[in-house]
Amino acid sequence: MANVGVMGAGSWGTALALLLHKNGHQVTVWSINQEEVDMLSSKREHTSKLPGVKLPEEMIFTSNMEEAIVGKDFLVLAVPSPFTRSTARNMKPYVKEGQIIVDVAKGIEEATLMTLSQQIEEELPQADVAVLSGPSHAEEVGRGLPTIVVIGARRKKTAEYLQSMFMNEVFRVYTSPDMLGMELGGSLKNVIALAAGIADGMGYGDNTKAALITRGIAEIARLGVKMGGAIESFTGLTGIGDLIVTCASVHSRNRKAGYLMGQGKSMQEAMDEVQMVVEGVYSTKAAVKLGEKYGVSLPIINKVNEVLFEGKDPKEAVNELMLRDSKAEHTALPWKE
Amino acid sequence: MANVGVMGAGSWGTALALLLHKNGHQVTVWSINQEEVDMLSSKREHTSKLPGVKLPEEMIFTSNMEEAIVGKDFLVLAVPSPFTRSTARNMKPYVKEGQIIVDVAKGIEEATLMTLSQQIEEELPQADVAVLSGPSHAEEVGRGLPTIVVIGARRKKTAEYLQSMFMNEVFRVYTSPDMLGMELGGSLKNVIALAAGIADGMGYGDNTKAALITRGIAEIARLGVKMGGAIESFTGLTGIGDLIVTCASVHSRNRKAGYLMGQGKSMQEAMDEVQMVVEGVYSTKAAVKLGEKYGVSLPIINKVNEVLFEGKDPKEAVNELMLRDSKAEHTALPWKE
Repeated sequence: MANVGVMGAGSWGTALALLLHKNGHQVTVWSINQEEVDMLSSKREHTSKLPGVKLPEEMIFTSNMEEAIVGKDFLVLAVPSPFTRSTARNMKPYVKEGQIIVDVAKGIEEATLMTLSQQIEEELPQADVAVLSGPSHAEEVGRGLPTIVVIGARRKKTAEYLQSMFMNEVFRVYTSPDMLGMELGGSLKNVIALAAGIADGMGYGDNTKAALITRGIAEIARLGVKMGGAIESFTGLTGIGDLIVTCASVHSRNRKAGYLMGQGKSMQEAMDEVQMVVEGVYSTKAAVKLGEKYGVSLPIINKVNEVLFEGKDPKEAVNELMLRDSKAEHTALPWKE
Repeated sequence: MANVGVMGAGSWGTALALLLHKNGHQVTVWSINQEEVDMLSSKREHTSKLPGVKLPEEMIFTSNMEEAIVGKDFLVLAVPSPFTRSTARNMKPYVKEGQIIVDVAKGIEEATLMTLSQQIEEELPQADVAVLSGPSHAEEVGRGLPTIVVIGARRKKTAEYLQSMFMNEVFRVYTSPDMLGMELGGSLKNVIALAAGIADGMGYGDNTKAALITRGIAEIARLGVKMGGAIESFTGLTGIGDLIVTCASVHSRNRKAGYLMGQGKSMQEAMDEVQMVVEGVYSTKAAVKLGEKYGVSLPIINKVNEVLFEGKDPKEAVNELMLRDSKAEHTALPWKE
């Protein structure tokens, strides 16, 4: 049995806290929001973010950061990406040398183009930072539906320790040394989810969506490999796997925002209707910058950027993608004749 | 303008015939079934297989093989995979030296473990055989929804010629020299579609399905690369792309048969209810044989085989897959520490 601190009580943090509890660990969940802590403590359910999933009496909820960190065998960092850096900074006084922190959010900081683990390592140099990613709707993990994810870490020992903490008969965990590739795939996939949503909103079919997903991950992989990620992460659970689940989901905010734009709404109208942070909108900006910085062609991502920020008509964007020069699918494959 | 013969008037043959007509070519469609030819000629619509899609007066329908082959610039072979070899054999007297035949069906012959293009080349050594594959429901191509496919050939010149014949503003065509990888991906994906259908039928969620799709294509790729296919074909449109569209579709017979088995029906009951050839059932046998022949571990495909032919309970199969030894996602990636 381990003592675990989960930082952040959103749907994902709450679902993972419950999973760790079921695996026999003592779990303390921190939220910055005292009202949320009170609701969780009294109702033993996250009524807005994970309704219908009962949380056990043994689970401790607190708004006291020190209580959630000090003496814990490892920490789960589950705050939304815009708050990752500031939360890590606030955690600094309590995190001891070598303490394991597994980040479960995704995103790229637009100003620095840093992944979340890079930001955490910058703010908490004493920590041993790992990441957890893969196709995993929190709602389904909360309901105990079979799910497979990957835990990435710098050290094999850390990855295998965390694997043994999280794994059970409905939650299979693989390990990987490629944190960078995992994080790039997990954040950039949201741009392609926007594109898939736009295509759905325009009334296009499964053929169009499958092509966007496949060519989209190919373009993310080109960029990610140039940046130092491993191709296997983009063709694996944290790349194409996560992208498939996002594009299939009616819950995805990214897909939904795209859908509304495909039906003719502006980006602002779509974001107003979704009423939450649409991560892919920020990732699009970061992706375009990364493409320029690393000299990688990103045709789909650039079209999404034009639709989002330059008022490009989605139909025209699709036509331009379909009618680019005739090409080989993979220019690296040789012809014998 | 080219003269084209389309062999086979199923939904895919008919949709591609219409596409080629719209691209300005003269198209003759052959069917072995005189009733089907009469219906197509008089109604100008395939009322059962592609209802609602109007076929132009200029399109010629015939049950005379010679008429559809002789003098044609290229042929499209669109008969179901169990009839590919016999149809190719019957075409032999009419196919001239160097005549291009693009096969658009998918399958592996269980007895010989040969792909369709290999069977055609064996029966028609005088032909220049190519393949067309990718995420492409015939119904959506018939309706003109944006679709992207790949044409594979032995010679670049052949692939680029066919690319120029098929490509238009809603049908984008890439080329590839890897016919083997394209065909293995296209046929083995049906086994994973069965697995995804089973998971859906058991009431599992998007997480489970995305994991099955991702790990499923990884295992197909391991086998296919060992057999000489290029990894790019499995991670591209003809591999993961085609698998995504099949697993997402409510029309897929493979997914539907799996769904019924996930709800507790036997393979025979499921096949009786689907009332058509479930390609994946045959591909499963071929895949298991190929795995043994090439010494490649195929955990998901082997579990599908056990569920189909050995009465294994699907729930038990999923549990066994989830609880295999803890592993790294990709054993080739090195750890620094």
